[in-house]
Amino acid sequence: MNAAVDVLQSSHQHINRDRLWQSLMELARLGATVKGGVCRLALTDLDRQARDLFVKWCEEAGCTVTVDGIGNIFARRPGRNPGLPPVMTGSHIDTQPTGGKFDGCFGVLAGVEVLRTLNDLKLETEAPLEVVVWTNEEGSRFPPCMMGSGVFAEKFTLEDTLAKTDVDGVSVGEALNAIGYAGQRKVSGHPVGAYFEAHIEQGPILEDERKTIGVVMGALGQKWFDLKLRGVEAHAGPTPMHLRKDALVGAAAVVAAVNRAALGHQPHACGTVGCLQAYPGSRNVIPGEVRMTLDFRHLEPARLDSMIDQVRQVIDSTCEEHGLSFELTPTADFPPLYFNPDCIEAVRGAAQGLGLSHMDIVSGAGHDAIFVAELGPAGMIFVPCEGGISHNEIENAAPDDLAAGCAVLLRAMLAASATIAGTRR
Amino acid sequence: MNAAVDVLQSSHQHINRDRLWQSLMELARLGATVKGGVCRLALTDLDRQARDLFVKWCEEAGCTVTVDGIGNIFARRPGRNPGLPPVMTGSHIDTQPTGGKFDGCFGVLAGVEVLRTLNDLKLETEAPLEVVVWTNEEGSRFPPCMMGSGVFAEKFTLEDTLAKTDVDGVSVGEALNAIGYAGQRKVSGHPVGAYFEAHIEQGPILEDERKTIGVVMGALGQKWFDLKLRGVEAHAGPTPMHLRKDALVGAAAVVAAVNRAALGHQPHACGTVGCLQAYPGSRNVIPGEVRMTLDFRHLEPARLDSMIDQVRQVIDSTCEEHGLSFELTPTADFPPLYFNPDCIEAVRGAAQGLGLSHMDIVSGAGHDAIFVAELGPAGMIFVPCEGGISHNEIENAAPDDLAAGCAVLLRAMLAASATIAGTRR
Repeated sequence: MNAAVDVLQSSHQHINRDRLWQSLMELARLGATVKGGVCRLALTDLDRQARDLFVKWCEEAGCTVTVDGIGNIFARRPGRNPGLPPVMTGSHIDTQPTGGKFDGCFGVLAGVEVLRTLNDLKLETEAPLEVVVWTNEEGSRFPPCMMGSGVFAEKFTLEDTLAKTDVDGVSVGEALNAIGYAGQRKVSGHPVGAYFEAHIEQGPILEDERKTIGVVMGALGQKWFDLKLRGVEAHAGPTPMHLRKDALVGAAAVVAAVNRAALGHQPHACGTVGCLQAYPGSRNVIPGEVRMTLDFRHLEPARLDSMIDQVRQVIDSTCEEHGLSFELTPTADFPPLYFNPDCIEAVRGAAQGLGLSHMDIVSGAGHDAIFVAELGPAGMIFVPCEGGISHNEIENAAPDDLAAGCAVLLRAMLAASATIAGTRR
Repeated sequence: MNAAVDVLQSSHQHINRDRLWQSLMELARLGATVKGGVCRLALTDLDRQARDLFVKWCEEAGCTVTVDGIGNIFARRPGRNPGLPPVMTGSHIDTQPTGGKFDGCFGVLAGVEVLRTLNDLKLETEAPLEVVVWTNEEGSRFPPCMMGSGVFAEKFTLEDTLAKTDVDGVSVGEALNAIGYAGQRKVSGHPVGAYFEAHIEQGPILEDERKTIGVVMGALGQKWFDLKLRGVEAHAGPTPMHLRKDALVGAAAVVAAVNRAALGHQPHACGTVGCLQAYPGSRNVIPGEVRMTLDFRHLEPARLDSMIDQVRQVIDSTCEEHGLSFELTPTADFPPLYFNPDCIEAVRGAAQGLGLSHMDIVSGAGHDAIFVAELGPAGMIFVPCEGGISHNEIENAAPDDLAAGCAVLLRAMLAASATIAGTRR
């Protein structure tokens, strides 16, 4: 395989930037919105059309296509040694209702472009390669998100997942059958030699730091809470300050504490109050109750807990000070994930070898790679998106950046194939 | 009149506590709610029944009853000198939809009890006395509040006010006609020798300070604002703290600043954020916009403005710090009101003379007395209400406290009558 690596050593000239871009634009026509975005919900007929197009492109690239029981599509390019576990890449082609052209689709079509480039170069890899479309990553029509990769990684059972329904009562199983993507292949037990996922960053860091490639170290752990603060609602005029039990004054202290805790636990700390409602919500009534959400994220479990402890102390002291009571209820708990060091090094080495500006970065959001990482070595490649904006019809990315990300993907996959072949030789 | 004052010198034994209480309870049956409150919206048939009861009681007490063009009812007890301007008292008998038995009704029935007590004592005053029911103080069915006293004080024109409609499109004029209280008497030009209004405090201060009588010095000035803060909504995961423009973090600083400004401008300062909405209101999205209300109250105009300046500075610096823009829109501006020094002294002197515990207090809320004060010397008497709770079906007050307030009212009205007679002699 050294020959293959050598071919790709000094540049990413072999990736066909315009072919990649045109495939992205062609896919984006399926569900195109007036505002330039895409609405292609999972397991709709538009999703079927997009899947059919992916299958056609992969078959044209010489792949064998199989579909598993949850509708994940695997396009396999044979390797020299069919007994080796595949080097995989992929992402999703379903979108948010007001989604963009790049979220997920870039990862899938970067995989297709890898296949096409290898064909152009007439290069055979030692290990087989696979490009995967994971079913329903967005979870917009059928919660939860990352459904296909979750069943693949045995986070969710196939039976339960097929029974999930959309708002019209249509089940995942029915929808898969309706679009012809209820596959025969067994979902579990699929070998994973390595998995790389290319994705737009969906955040503003790379753009802000003027870097082309994000070497994704892992994904932030997340702990979510609902917080209810109870005081006493009273008339804003006749109730003097020292006799108030103002739930919103308490809530403001908590919002400030969440922000302060995140700033005090950098790097890789986020703290967000996304929802806050004050009751009864009348201009001249002191709020007697506030309901709010707390979202804490960190790469290190101990520091995640330290942030939360700091905010808990503020909740205690604030409630004491203002005569409030509170209920703090955990609603989600995802541990941090560290990607495989070899995969991280393969991505970093590829970016370095290609002379691309790059930086280590962590994913603040969920991706299929996080579930696939449970089954084998995994890594991710981020490229910038304009203004850090995603899950929005104005989502945008530069053709050069996408091609650069694809070149890194190709190189990392070839390196992983060489590693797998070397260790199994 | 000194004889009359002497009779009432050392106690309030002449006020019939139980008669006052029973009248309050009888009035409270009209519109009684299951939870022990009263729902008697202005100009409904229940309001008519309450008005009829008041008129009957006043006529039984020997009064002449007239009604003006906005439905205010004047029950006049003749004085020895009919040329003197009347010493007036009153309040309202309309309620909030979930109102209590005492808000307004106490002031009206304390006036009726004053008439009855004077009759019991066979006392004639020098100046005529009048007990007034002001139309639609609550403004629940027909905004604005303090409608009847507002037209009386020429704050609102009669024509405009009669044209105001409820949610069903019924106008004030139509509703007055329907209940038979569109009176013939001219609204403006009514002489006011003095005006006293007894009222439950609707706040917790008297109870907290264990005082029976609040000598009301004036009413807080009020300035209200709408504040809109705009940042950038973004995904709570991939957006690092230093690149956020979190409108809710800014709003929290403003809530804290409003509270701090009020605490720093004591006494007689209130600052309240009653409404706060964060958009888009999703658990893992950084709020891009917050809309909130600011309510500032103070007895001194300069200190009211100083509070607001302090908060404006925080809004400026917070928006600068967090990259936010803002719109601050004034929505109301009521100047502070100081009651007439002679009326204040009449109330304080009455409480002292009767040996009642008392304290100076200011009204944080609006009352009919605030408008009437534009036309002549006015003052108010507060008595405690349980837990400071009002505009609520559980509103409650102690019979002894109500009788004490009524005794102070009687004594203050007699003192005012003597003063008017003395200055006009």
